[in-house]
Amino acid sequence: MFLLSDLSGDVLIREVGLRDGLQNEKQFVATEDKIRLARALTAAGLREIEITSFVSPKAVPQMRDAKEIVAALGQPEGVTYSALVVNRRGAEDAIASGVKELQYVVSCSETHSQKNVRMSVDEALQQAAIISDLAKENGLTIRTALSATFGCPFEGKTSYDRVYDLLEKLFSLGVERVSLSDTAGLGNPRQVAQLCQGIVARFPEDRFSLHLHDTRGLGLACTLAGVWAGIRVIESSIGGLGGCPFVPNATGNIATEDVVYMMEEMGISTGLDWQQLMNAAMMAEKILGRDLNSKQLSLTRILQCRE
Amino acid sequence: MFLLSDLSGDVLIREVGLRDGLQNEKQFVATEDKIRLARALTAAGLREIEITSFVSPKAVPQMRDAKEIVAALGQPEGVTYSALVVNRRGAEDAIASGVKELQYVVSCSETHSQKNVRMSVDEALQQAAIISDLAKENGLTIRTALSATFGCPFEGKTSYDRVYDLLEKLFSLGVERVSLSDTAGLGNPRQVAQLCQGIVARFPEDRFSLHLHDTRGLGLACTLAGVWAGIRVIESSIGGLGGCPFVPNATGNIATEDVVYMMEEMGISTGLDWQQLMNAAMMAEKILGRDLNSKQLSLTRILQCRE
Repeated sequence: MFLLSDLSGDVLIREVGLRDGLQNEKQFVATEDKIRLARALTAAGLREIEITSFVSPKAVPQMRDAKEIVAALGQPEGVTYSALVVNRRGAEDAIASGVKELQYVVSCSETHSQKNVRMSVDEALQQAAIISDLAKENGLTIRTALSATFGCPFEGKTSYDRVYDLLEKLFSLGVERVSLSDTAGLGNPRQVAQLCQGIVARFPEDRFSLHLHDTRGLGLACTLAGVWAGIRVIESSIGGLGGCPFVPNATGNIATEDVVYMMEEMGISTGLDWQQLMNAAMMAEKILGRDLNSKQLSLTRILQCRE
Repeated sequence: MFLLSDLSGDVLIREVGLRDGLQNEKQFVATEDKIRLARALTAAGLREIEITSFVSPKAVPQMRDAKEIVAALGQPEGVTYSALVVNRRGAEDAIASGVKELQYVVSCSETHSQKNVRMSVDEALQQAAIISDLAKENGLTIRTALSATFGCPFEGKTSYDRVYDLLEKLFSLGVERVSLSDTAGLGNPRQVAQLCQGIVARFPEDRFSLHLHDTRGLGLACTLAGVWAGIRVIESSIGGLGGCPFVPNATGNIATEDVVYMMEEMGISTGLDWQQLMNAAMMAEKILGRDLNSKQLSLTRILQCRE
């Protein structure tokens, strides 16, 4: 284990704004805007992008254009576009669309699992096995978000053993990678450091990404803690897409440009083109038609206001 | 040195909203509102509060009521109210007012020093000696903010040796405590960890506080890094007072309630009363008449919007 002050190396940013960010938007975002934004993100150097989800258009109307988006984007060399699915039907639709990676979801919390996907955790694990098999039969890679890894708004803190146990089960079912997800932003840096340390001691570290929300302002501090502990894939959302659209400063996902700024300032390379990334963030802001919640975007506004 | 995951202990919060926060506010805040807020902060358990500055009322009209504020608040048992001064005249006024601690300012950057106090760094150090002597002759404690500790918008990164050298000088001149200040929010967590580690290896750690701004979103991550390195006094501003009033989400100082939330969640005690602290934050918001930039305040707005 190394000291915080010795932090070094690279991280890979996994962009989730088009999926986790946009799914909270009540107003439908035009398909061509989503495609434009996905291309801008790809041009900035992002190599892993969650672009859409294949879910019921009644439940999430924002994602009703999943098929068109996958078709338009294709599979550029060196880039992995993923689609979220929550059941067999979605997985089949996603596979038919031509996407090359599936992202499934299992929660650590029974209450959250019921509310989110109307299944118990055990039922969700059974689905994970089916979807994992389907993915592999069709040559796709399969990953799973582990929701409520750090806590659940209904059940409180998640025990570390619960997380280790679910990770063991997911990998035994054929899942290749896991997003350690803190959807309600309940984790704290010491907890993230401890749990991630425990995880990389038990499993190969390249199987994990950290998916944090900044609801309580600890997103970047928790990211630092996770990277310190050895997690080197960070999931984030361009412009901090994913907050509550009606409340100023109510961030959801951590903003890609804020994570990238922190990493590059520390000398940790993300391999991204800063100017193109900021262009994508400003594009997202224009598409949404309101100020988004990233510090880097708010800095551009401060500079404009001083000019 | 311990691992990030082993972080423990206590921190002391030094509240600077009434001084560093309010000095950016163009609109004069009524003296009675400032006093009310100072009392609410004291009631929440804050034991170190920078309450005003004795500076030219022409330069900073917001602080023209310094004398009345000190007189109204008195010196409750166990609480240290500080006042900022930038020259001998201010120090004399502050001493005459009855305040028990002076906070002076020296910058690491020549350019910043000239712009901020119209003195070279050497001239500022000479003043530090005079003010330190004056303070001690009158039974006051004397502290100094070391501006641009982590970088300067005009001169770039500050070298660690420059900081060690200035700290050596300040202590030799009789200064008792130093606020390591990142006014432009230019520090990054690795740098904060490294420099603070170097500082506590060279000087007694109880002489230092960390004064961070969240301009680029790294405020809490840098706080984590500083606490990890052994700095145990954190300066912050209730409600995140100190941002640009005209730009949404343009935070200045890190918000007291956000730091306290992070620390308490990690099991690091601040000794503060959470509900009274949030009452003070909401009071600050009402006094300023606009939404302030703290995550904890924005959470209260999200909850209201869901009800």
